[in-house]
Amino acid sequence: MSNLVLYSYWRSSCSYRVRVALNFKGLDYEYRDVHLVRDGGEQHQEAYRKLNPMGQVPCLITPDGALNQSMAIMEYLELVKPEPSLFPGNPYQACRIRAVCESINAGIQPLQNLNVLQDLKTRYGVDQDGVAEWVAHWIAKGLDAVEKEVAPHAGRFCFGDQVTAADMFLAPQVYNAVRFKVDMAQFPTLSRINEACLKQSVFIDAEPSRQPDAAPA
Amino acid sequence: MSNLVLYSYWRSSCSYRVRVALNFKGLDYEYRDVHLVRDGGEQHQEAYRKLNPMGQVPCLITPDGALNQSMAIMEYLELVKPEPSLFPGNPYQACRIRAVCESINAGIQPLQNLNVLQDLKTRYGVDQDGVAEWVAHWIAKGLDAVEKEVAPHAGRFCFGDQVTAADMFLAPQVYNAVRFKVDMAQFPTLSRINEACLKQSVFIDAEPSRQPDAAPA
Repeated sequence: MSNLVLYSYWRSSCSYRVRVALNFKGLDYEYRDVHLVRDGGEQHQEAYRKLNPMGQVPCLITPDGALNQSMAIMEYLELVKPEPSLFPGNPYQACRIRAVCESINAGIQPLQNLNVLQDLKTRYGVDQDGVAEWVAHWIAKGLDAVEKEVAPHAGRFCFGDQVTAADMFLAPQVYNAVRFKVDMAQFPTLSRINEACLKQSVFIDAEPSRQPDAAPA
Repeated sequence: MSNLVLYSYWRSSCSYRVRVALNFKGLDYEYRDVHLVRDGGEQHQEAYRKLNPMGQVPCLITPDGALNQSMAIMEYLELVKPEPSLFPGNPYQACRIRAVCESINAGIQPLQNLNVLQDLKTRYGVDQDGVAEWVAHWIAKGLDAVEKEVAPHAGRFCFGDQVTAADMFLAPQVYNAVRFKVDMAQFPTLSRINEACLKQSVFIDAEPSRQPDAAPA
């Protein structure tokens, strides 16, 4: 498959997931950055809103057209290039992987979304420290559940010793956890898995700091 | 497939989605209610937390074990009973359906989650009216995007004239929109689709008010 274009922002955890998945599938893509802060947020500009009415990244341009939502994009990649599989195993196993993805996708990430944090400031007058506390609270609460979900069947990764989509949701979420000063020592299984992920080239090449739009450290 | 058990709460929009999907697939199931408010929330009790560490409904007990997260459950139903399909069409079409599901699943619902609303009250002292305003804001903002996503290809339902998973996420979200007094006249396509859904028996039988644990009107 050629001509894939990914609209991404270096520090967006949802974009990070898809970058790993594209690397994992061995699919080349053109990177186009959408700066979520500059000029009030390039994701709100009319041209981009036509691709993504939610005004969010990522958006993958496929040969058939634009596709939004990281989970839907990963299901698409799985359908058009089944191997290596993002959701391996029998239907139950494949969907337990999806459930871990969703615990992060729907259970944690939406509460750290930039729109929400900006709204907390304007609606309730929450300051930057208060916003950071809010984010850290929801990340820690969610990761506590994910630790319990994952620990019984974890190997080197969330599901045994092979990388699955669950790991591709986990590592970007841990990246944010660290950014918001969540004590990852509470989650020994997830910490260990995250470290294993960050040694894999498909994760390394997708890391925020290595993207063309990354801000200098 | 026999012996399916659904842990559900009548007014949970995520449970409502799965009830429709089970009906759509023609799968019988045993209904077990988890009261999200009574006794501080039955979802927080230890026995239930073992099934669902996030402390949320729904949870489907399959012949292989417990499965959480409405989207993962629907993917499971699709794998074990492919017809009628929740995600029909070619990979791009099937994943555009998933993207609409996720715009609701990850884009709207998490911000109206009971945990979050309770936290707004304790953390920021937001009163009941304030909480209702918060919910209405995020539902309206999200449905505005979904209206734009869906309108270009809508038929009687979100994707042409057949019911798909997108409709099963939409109708429960509209149910909540009405509950939180969002003016649905802003979203003519979604309003029309919702009305069409509510004439289908698979939706009617899944409606909150028809569940065994429904509170009297």
